Amino acid sequence: MMEHPENSSEYAGLQVNAGVIPMGTRNPYLRRGRFAQRHLTASEYVEGILKGNTSVLGQAVTLVESTHPAHQQMAQEVIEKCLPYSGNSIRVGISGVPGAGKSTSIDEFGLHVLREYGGKLAVLAIDPSSERTKGSILGDKTRMEKLSVHPDSFIRPSPSAGSLGGVARKTRETIILCEAAGYDKIFVETVGVGQSETACHSMVDFFLLIQLAGTGDELQGIKRGIMEMADGIVINKCDGNNVDKCRLAATQFCNALHLFPMPESGWTPQVLCYSGFYGTGIKEIWDMVYAYVAHAKANGYFEHRRNEQAKFWMYESINEQLRNSFYQNPTIETLLQAQEQDVLQGKKTSFVAAKQLLDQYFRLLK
Amino acid sequence: MMEHPENSSEYAGLQVNAGVIPMGTRNPYLRRGRFAQRHLTASEYVEGILKGNTSVLGQAVTLVESTHPAHQQMAQEVIEKCLPYSGNSIRVGISGVPGAGKSTSIDEFGLHVLREYGGKLAVLAIDPSSERTKGSILGDKTRMEKLSVHPDSFIRPSPSAGSLGGVARKTRETIILCEAAGYDKIFVETVGVGQSETACHSMVDFFLLIQLAGTGDELQGIKRGIMEMADGIVINKCDGNNVDKCRLAATQFCNALHLFPMPESGWTPQVLCYSGFYGTGIKEIWDMVYAYVAHAKANGYFEHRRNEQAKFWMYESINEQLRNSFYQNPTIETLLQAQEQDVLQGKKTSFVAAKQLLDQYFRLLK
Repeated sequence: MMEHPENSSEYAGLQVNAGVIPMGTRNPYLRRGRFAQRHLTASEYVEGILKGNTSVLGQAVTLVESTHPAHQQMAQEVIEKCLPYSGNSIRVGISGVPGAGKSTSIDEFGLHVLREYGGKLAVLAIDPSSERTKGSILGDKTRMEKLSVHPDSFIRPSPSAGSLGGVARKTRETIILCEAAGYDKIFVETVGVGQSETACHSMVDFFLLIQLAGTGDELQGIKRGIMEMADGIVINKCDGNNVDKCRLAATQFCNALHLFPMPESGWTPQVLCYSGFYGTGIKEIWDMVYAYVAHAKANGYFEHRRNEQAKFWMYESINEQLRNSFYQNPTIETLLQAQEQDVLQGKKTSFVAAKQLLDQYFRLLK
Repeated sequence: MMEHPENSSEYAGLQVNAGVIPMGTRNPYLRRGRFAQRHLTASEYVEGILKGNTSVLGQAVTLVESTHPAHQQMAQEVIEKCLPYSGNSIRVGISGVPGAGKSTSIDEFGLHVLREYGGKLAVLAIDPSSERTKGSILGDKTRMEKLSVHPDSFIRPSPSAGSLGGVARKTRETIILCEAAGYDKIFVETVGVGQSETACHSMVDFFLLIQLAGTGDELQGIKRGIMEMADGIVINKCDGNNVDKCRLAATQFCNALHLFPMPESGWTPQVLCYSGFYGTGIKEIWDMVYAYVAHAKANGYFEHRRNEQAKFWMYESINEQLRNSFYQNPTIETLLQAQEQDVLQGKKTSFVAAKQLLDQYFRLLK
């Protein structure tokens, strides 16, 4: 059997090391030189974002991703000011295991929606593993050769912030900034291997799952939970000798989906075949997404889902800030290390260590 | 094919509605009447527990499980005083999907270890679903007919406290109390279907997974993550016509285990067949568990694992208490409901709602 062209080394050689932020018009915000972004005020960030300046937007996202307390405070100010201008977009989550051809697909998907529906597209990512593996999705060299040089696209790799919760929050905040900057289509890419799907699902209007035909029953078993979240399943690499196998897989996925209870949205998830490499079947996929959006807006589910997501994020936000207030307290940081060592060496129980740390923390807050 | 006797309705009819707490000697702590437990002081609880009084122990566990703030404070005091007397036990996690025959197995396992090794056995459970389904494991009517009337056993159903974290913490605290009461063998039962295994694994020395032969590939696929945690896999219902099928399954599990990396303990998980209903193959299982304990104590892993678990629980304890301090604050409770409604109705963003609540909370702490 021939190797699929997308996986061949020849194809890899064709990739372009394009910059992540497309260069458009000259950027007045860079006039102060290389470190200009450090001196922008919150209002200047907001002004630049609302004007759709991609360079300022990129700097604001860097601010959101920073772990420096001063940057975080500034970021929150910028987000708050951008909030009234956010929300007017279609947010689509795109998931699939490594090798499913997510990058090539997103490249084609993006070109299609920009061509057919106009507007601007931001492509973001959630990949909590990016810090450890450095093999981040949408990483150092973007693999979306066409989109990355498109004037109406903004591509941003996954924030690498350790915990999934932190990474997901930063991606969600980046959505706000992008929407305020006029991006009315948001793609959120995520790896199809774990809990990051749930995080992605909690911030998008439509969750699209990219599958391959014939990847073995075991893998499909693991992915059942992810399948249940999908609003649409699309089978990639439906080309050449692979077409029959893909159509068979589509039937199987359809049958599997019928075993799940009817989704709350009243929308029956559809299964479609396409080829990201040859760019075929792309239109049908986006006809489906836009049909879903029309359906969900008509029956009120679109707004309901966003409000439920907002509620979820209110609790996430509270819990994260409660933890940060504790773990980022300099006194607690020092004490914590000592207590952890005592616990690890069996000198103290976990209960006593936790109690002493919390007592100290609440004394410090007074 | 004959229905397995354990699943037949005839067998169900044989079950005895035995009390959860075995009745031993007369209990002096009950002399104050029906509500005596409400009037015990922390010291009286500790005294009763250290004397091995099962009635007081049961009341103390009820205190641990209570959501009433006054009870919780008293419970923490009792736990702290019991801590110096805890830790001297072997803690075994026992997991398996519904229908694997956990109850019958634990009945046989318990009788075996009490007969062969003496001492006292406490059987606890982690089942976060118990509140919703009311079909709690070790629930209302214990299904361990022999153990439940054994003078040296203490059986306690899963606390039903909503979140997995809360349920798991309460089970862990109950372990402390049981150990202080002289129980030197602790079984922690859990349902083999989700994250409760991870919680169970975080508090036991040996994690035993009960499997059945021929339950389908899909199920096994989902359970891969659980298999990786197992220190031993035992295949139940190895009796009658089922023996060959079980031995084949054992070989398959053995092969699957070889694909996992060598565990940190330096112990190769073993796979054994048995019949809980006929009580065959039980000895070999407990020879294995005690061989593991000897191995892990010799190479220092036993203590290392307990210390790592203590560290994990220190962080769990901190995070839970941080959340409780916020969510159980009466002012916050009231404000939270209003904010949640505002967010759900789209009147306010999640960011703003979270910020207002946190600002209010930190003002209240001052």
